[in-house]
Amino acid sequence: MEDRLKKIIDSIRPVDLGLEPEIQAHLDDLTKPKGSLGRLEEIAKTYCLIRHDVKPALPKKAVLVFAADHGVTEEGVSAFPKEVTFQMVYNFLSGGAGINVLARHAGADVRVVDIGVDYDFPELEGLIRRKVMHGSRNMAKTTAMDRDKAVEAIMAGAELAKEAVSQGSTLLATGEMGIGNTTPASAITAVFCKMRPEDVTGRGTGINQDALGHKTAVIEQAIRLNSPDPSDPIGVLSKVGGLEIAGICGLVLGAASLGTPVVVDGFISTAGALVAHALQPIVRDYLFASHQSVEKGHRAQLSHMGLRPVLDLDLRLGEGTGAALAMGLIDAGLKIYLEMATFSGAKVSTGSEIL
Amino acid sequence: MEDRLKKIIDSIRPVDLGLEPEIQAHLDDLTKPKGSLGRLEEIAKTYCLIRHDVKPALPKKAVLVFAADHGVTEEGVSAFPKEVTFQMVYNFLSGGAGINVLARHAGADVRVVDIGVDYDFPELEGLIRRKVMHGSRNMAKTTAMDRDKAVEAIMAGAELAKEAVSQGSTLLATGEMGIGNTTPASAITAVFCKMRPEDVTGRGTGINQDALGHKTAVIEQAIRLNSPDPSDPIGVLSKVGGLEIAGICGLVLGAASLGTPVVVDGFISTAGALVAHALQPIVRDYLFASHQSVEKGHRAQLSHMGLRPVLDLDLRLGEGTGAALAMGLIDAGLKIYLEMATFSGAKVSTGSEIL
Repeated sequence: MEDRLKKIIDSIRPVDLGLEPEIQAHLDDLTKPKGSLGRLEEIAKTYCLIRHDVKPALPKKAVLVFAADHGVTEEGVSAFPKEVTFQMVYNFLSGGAGINVLARHAGADVRVVDIGVDYDFPELEGLIRRKVMHGSRNMAKTTAMDRDKAVEAIMAGAELAKEAVSQGSTLLATGEMGIGNTTPASAITAVFCKMRPEDVTGRGTGINQDALGHKTAVIEQAIRLNSPDPSDPIGVLSKVGGLEIAGICGLVLGAASLGTPVVVDGFISTAGALVAHALQPIVRDYLFASHQSVEKGHRAQLSHMGLRPVLDLDLRLGEGTGAALAMGLIDAGLKIYLEMATFSGAKVSTGSEIL
Repeated sequence: MEDRLKKIIDSIRPVDLGLEPEIQAHLDDLTKPKGSLGRLEEIAKTYCLIRHDVKPALPKKAVLVFAADHGVTEEGVSAFPKEVTFQMVYNFLSGGAGINVLARHAGADVRVVDIGVDYDFPELEGLIRRKVMHGSRNMAKTTAMDRDKAVEAIMAGAELAKEAVSQGSTLLATGEMGIGNTTPASAITAVFCKMRPEDVTGRGTGINQDALGHKTAVIEQAIRLNSPDPSDPIGVLSKVGGLEIAGICGLVLGAASLGTPVVVDGFISTAGALVAHALQPIVRDYLFASHQSVEKGHRAQLSHMGLRPVLDLDLRLGEGTGAALAMGLIDAGLKIYLEMATFSGAKVSTGSEIL
C-alpha cells in the first residue's frame, strides 16, 4: 500500500502560474483602487491558479471531519473523557455541533469519517466507515500505531478526497474530533519544526497549568521513547501520531494530486498538513490556512510551511470550524472576482499617474 | 436643529448587562469546551446584550453608504479624480461595486445616500436624496462646512438609522464613498487622538511617497488654519470634516439611541464613529469594529475607543466592504449561539475538574 501512496505523492505538481497575468489584469480592472481588497484578491487569485481557470464557478465545498481516539488519553492529558469522541460523532451526525452550524453557514457539506474511534458504531446514516484501528496506542508507552496502519489511514484520507472531488467538490476543508489529539499534534509539531515540546504544547480543550506540565512531560517521554525521525514522515505518524491526523495528511495529499485546494483548520489539522508537507513540500501550493488558533504550537506550524492564516478569532475548537468560516471568505473573494463591475464596463474613471 | 441632536445624544443609555449570566450560561452549555469559539462567542453575547434578548432572531442587516465630495481634492490629495464619487454612486445603484457584492454575500441590504455629492443626480431608483451641500469646502483654505450643515448631515444619518430600524433592521453597518475623504478622516483622527497628522495619514486609494508628504502638509495646514477643538466635536466636523463622515456619526448616534448595534467599516467610517464617541462615549457599547484597515491612522482610532476589529484582511477600499464581511461573522456567531446542541440535549459528557 505504501507504493500506492508513493504514486499519489509523486503525482503532485506545482501550481501552474501561467494564468497569473490574466487573473491579475482582471482584478486590477475591477472598480476599486488596485489591491484595495487585500487578501480577498489574493485568495481569489490563488483559487483561480490552483483550479487553472480564469473564470471558475463558485466553489462546491465539503468539510471532512475525521474522528479517532488516542491511547495516550490514559495518561490524563485531556480535560474531557475519551467517550466524548464517539458522543461527538453522534452530535455531528445529528447536525448539532459547531462544525455543522458553521458549515451550513458557509454552504459546505460535512462528511463525518470514523477513521479510528474506539467505539463500535451501528450502521448510521451519514457516517463514513473507514476505521483503521479502535484508536491509537498510548505513545508514551509504545508506538501509536504500526507503520502499515499509518499508511492505511493516509490512504483513506486520500481516497475520500478523490471521492469528494469526483462528486463535484472543488474546495475541501479538514476537520477532526479526537479527545487527546492536541498531544500527538504537539509531538508532530515538535519533531518537524525542531522545537521543544514545551514550546508547542498548549491547553487543548482547557487544562490547567499543572495538567499542562504533565501533558508536556508525556509528550517529551513519547518522543524520547520512540525517537521519531523527521526525514521519515510516515514513521513520525506511526510513532507519535494519530489516525485522524493521518487521515488529514492523506486528504491534503489526495486533494493536491487532483489540483483541488484544501482549507486547513487549526492546530490538529495543521499537524496533518505538516506531515503531508514533509512527504511532499509542493502541497503547500494547494493550502489555505484558515485561522490562527489559540494553541501555541500553531504559529510554528504555519510559519514552517510559510502559510498566513485568513482569520484570527481566538478559536480552539477544531472540528473544522475555522476552516468553514474561512470558506465563507474564500467565497467572498471569488464573488469579488466574478461579480464586480470593471472600470471599462461601469464608466468609472481610473486613478491618475500618482497612483 | 442642534437641540434635536442633543436630545438624541442624551437619550443614549449604556447597554444593560443584566442578561449576561443567562447568555453566558447558554454559551457554556453548548457542546464545545468553554470559550473555545473565542470571538464568535463574544460577538454573540455582545449582540444579545445590545438587543437585550436572550434568544434574538438572526439579524436583519443593512449597510448605509454615504457619498460626498470634498473641496480639499483641489489640493491634489487623491489619486482619483473627483468625478469618481458620482460615478461610483451609479455603480452602487447598479449593483457592481465591492460593497454590493459583499453585502449580497452577507445577506445585507445596501442603502446609498447622497449626502453631499457635487453632482446633480436625476431621480434614480434606490438613491436616497439627503444632499446637505454640493461637497464640502476646501479645508486647507477655509472651514469645510458651516456648523449648521454639519448638524444637518448628522441628523440625516440619525434619521436614516431610525428609518432602517423602523423597517426592521436590527444590525446596521456604515459605508462611504468620497474621493479625498481619507484627508478629513486623518485630520479628525489627529484631533481626537491627539496625534501628529504624519502619524495618522496614509496612502488612501494609493498615492506615492511624494504625494503622501503633500497630503500630510495639507492636513497640517487645515488644522493650523481652523484650530479644531476636540472638546467641540461638531466644531471639528465643520472645520476639518466631511459630509459622509457627519452622516456616519449620525448613524452611530441614531442607532445607539434605538438600541441597535452598528458595524463600523474602516478608516473613514471609524472617523465618523470617533466624532459620535466624542459627543457621547456610551456609543462604544453599540459598536462592532469590523476590520483592521491598511490606513495607518485606523489603529489609533480603534485603540482610542477600545475596540478590537474582527478581521484583518489588508483592506483599504471602504464603501462598507469590511463591515459587510464582518456581518457574516456576526451571523456565524449568532448561529452558533442559537443552533448548536447543548451538553444536556446531545448527551455529551462534560469536561472534568481539570478544566
